Amino acid sequence: MQSFNSNEHPHRRYNPLLDEWILVSPHRTKRPWQGQKESNSIETLPEYDPTCYLCPGNERSNGTKNPEYTDCYVFENDFSALLKEEVVIEPSTSTLFKLKPERGINKVVCFSPKHHLTLPEMEIDAIEKVIQTWKEQYIELGNHDFINYVQIFENKGAVMGCSNPHPHGQIWAQSSLPTQVEKTQKNLEHYYQQNNSSLLKDYLEEELKTKQRLVYENEHFAVVVPFWATWPYETLIISKRHFGTIIAMSKEETLAFADCIKTITVKYDNLFETSFPYSSGIHQAPTDRLAHPEWHFHMHFYPPLLRSATVKKFMVGYEMLGEAQRDISPEKSAAVLRDLPTLHYKLKQ
Amino acid sequence: MQSFNSNEHPHRRYNPLLDEWILVSPHRTKRPWQGQKESNSIETLPEYDPTCYLCPGNERSNGTKNPEYTDCYVFENDFSALLKEEVVIEPSTSTLFKLKPERGINKVVCFSPKHHLTLPEMEIDAIEKVIQTWKEQYIELGNHDFINYVQIFENKGAVMGCSNPHPHGQIWAQSSLPTQVEKTQKNLEHYYQQNNSSLLKDYLEEELKTKQRLVYENEHFAVVVPFWATWPYETLIISKRHFGTIIAMSKEETLAFADCIKTITVKYDNLFETSFPYSSGIHQAPTDRLAHPEWHFHMHFYPPLLRSATVKKFMVGYEMLGEAQRDISPEKSAAVLRDLPTLHYKLKQ
Ligand SMILES: O=P(O)(O)O[C@H]1O[C@H](CO)[C@@H](O)[C@H](O)[C@H]1O
Ligand SMILES: O=P(O)(O)O[C@H]1O[C@H](CO)[C@@H](O)[C@H](O)[C@H]1O
Repeated sequence: MQSFNSNEHPHRRYNPLLDEWILVSPHRTKRPWQGQKESNSIETLPEYDPTCYLCPGNERSNGTKNPEYTDCYVFENDFSALLKEEVVIEPSTSTLFKLKPERGINKVVCFSPKHHLTLPEMEIDAIEKVIQTWKEQYIELGNHDFINYVQIFENKGAVMGCSNPHPHGQIWAQSSLPTQVEKTQKNLEHYYQQNNSSLLKDYLEEELKTKQRLVYENEHFAVVVPFWATWPYETLIISKRHFGTIIAMSKEETLAFADCIKTITVKYDNLFETSFPYSSGIHQAPTDRLAHPEWHFHMHFYPPLLRSATVKKFMVGYEMLGEAQRDISPEKSAAVLRDLPTLHYKLKQ
Repeated sequence: MQSFNSNEHPHRRYNPLLDEWILVSPHRTKRPWQGQKESNSIETLPEYDPTCYLCPGNERSNGTKNPEYTDCYVFENDFSALLKEEVVIEPSTSTLFKLKPERGINKVVCFSPKHHLTLPEMEIDAIEKVIQTWKEQYIELGNHDFINYVQIFENKGAVMGCSNPHPHGQIWAQSSLPTQVEKTQKNLEHYYQQNNSSLLKDYLEEELKTKQRLVYENEHFAVVVPFWATWPYETLIISKRHFGTIIAMSKEETLAFADCIKTITVKYDNLFETSFPYSSGIHQAPTDRLAHPEWHFHMHFYPPLLRSATVKKFMVGYEMLGEAQRDISPEKSAAVLRDLPTLHYKLKQ
């Protein structure tokens, strides 16, 4: 019998944040690809686009005019998925038809007035301003008595459902803990009770020892391809210190966090010399006014590309019905990302 | 305070198969869409394509020549994600770095020798042959001592990662229960223990009473948009009789199942007058030689399209980090599908 090699043999890995397994088929990138390719938009965008509803001074669909903002600009989403209004409902006792109204607030966060920029192309201090804005929003939204959780995220690129290239993210704040967050909290809590320490702190310690999946680190944060990554170049930014929310971040830590965001997104762009699409978002403690010693601040990056600027990984049939599946080992992905330059390819001579 | 209306107010619904909640924002389809559109391929395909590696008589990438098959044809995937070989591994005791080798067999099932057909365009008796082939494969694969679960599925359409339009599906058979199946089994089992009856049988009874989400039914099966559907036009085919696997299906039930597959896929094609993409698959009892009275045979259809042949629902940022979210109520989707003709649009005069 052959002995196991994680870069060659199919295996499953356990995701302790979600209590789920994923399938790794490291030998499978060898297959040829004749399927759908994404378009690789290399058009150059103007710094200001008169037709963009996010550019300073322009009018949005509801008639509001954006101010002449100079760094970040936040407004309520004109097409919010959640609404503030409370509605009354007769309680149901059904176990198979369970439904409950949900209240919330949806915001849009413009990262920069400049239409043609993206996070990897912004200066570190401009990224710091974005983090500062996230902090303010986390506080302001969390102060509403009906808001118990604040999800900060970004969809970047058309392939990730983003309909406007102007650099922006979103915040969905709501009454309930969403499914993925509730699962994460449950697992962090369980670990904390068992070990009296933070799951992600203990995990990061190991990662910093072996460095097998480490992509980048500075004094306060590290970027890894998690052991249980599902997307080909998925990464996780983890704080070295154990704290639960963005508010707990010191000035120095904020700068270090900005440095990690800049570094990983530049590496992403450099991977296929394209504006690399992803969905990213912060997982942190709820705003439910309870103590949450189990929470450990982290940020996920879920990028879909697999082989090139145009060939993505499809999470379809088996993945939807069976389980998430990846075609390259997390160790290999980490090595590839680690070796990429931190200077954006557009700045090369 | 307004009183709750499920076609107007944001709410969450509970999925008892996965023990997860999803967010419904029924008012949200009103927003304009300026994002990515899929290409709507309306090219007419030939009945035989000399360059297709699935057509009868053609050579595959590994040099094998396909036989001149006349209905279904099954072969082992030339680029299998799972391999049969057993490998040895030193057991690890880590709680944060859990990994185990996984064995399995991947097969491809050609539904028809005709390159230009799809399930909705095939005759009922040809679909019955497909089901017959699935049965044989479930038995044959399940007979291997290292196979405990057989996942039958189809990826249809380029947008679902399908790289060849020749009508075909796949089977991934493996040692472990994949994550989604394990969750489903756990919830079916729990319900069975509590109520001494099948979750899906009880669920279907309710659906057949109100008919609010019923799309189609015949004597032995029903097609519903599940109460907890996440994809815009997601459906579930449920057997009326309580049985756990495809082997238990009588001749009459097989015909009725074929009729449901034909009907729902024709309705799908008719919705936007396009070859409607989806991933579909059967969930049924494992082949682990244990009794599974909790299992109730069913088939999921997960189609991505939302508004037209080219605009899909993106399950991205919030959905990946928070929870699945839909923009139209399941009741509305069901009404739309129910009212569509059962004659394929290409056959209209
Ligand atoms: O096996 P195929 O058709 O080449 O590949 C397709 O289906 C598989 C199973 O759902 C996925 O893992 C792949 O990402 C997808 O492109
Ligand atoms: O709100 P947007 O950017 O219009 O929409 C995008 O992000 C949302 C949140 O992840 C998703 O629900 C939508 O499917 C996607 O197109």
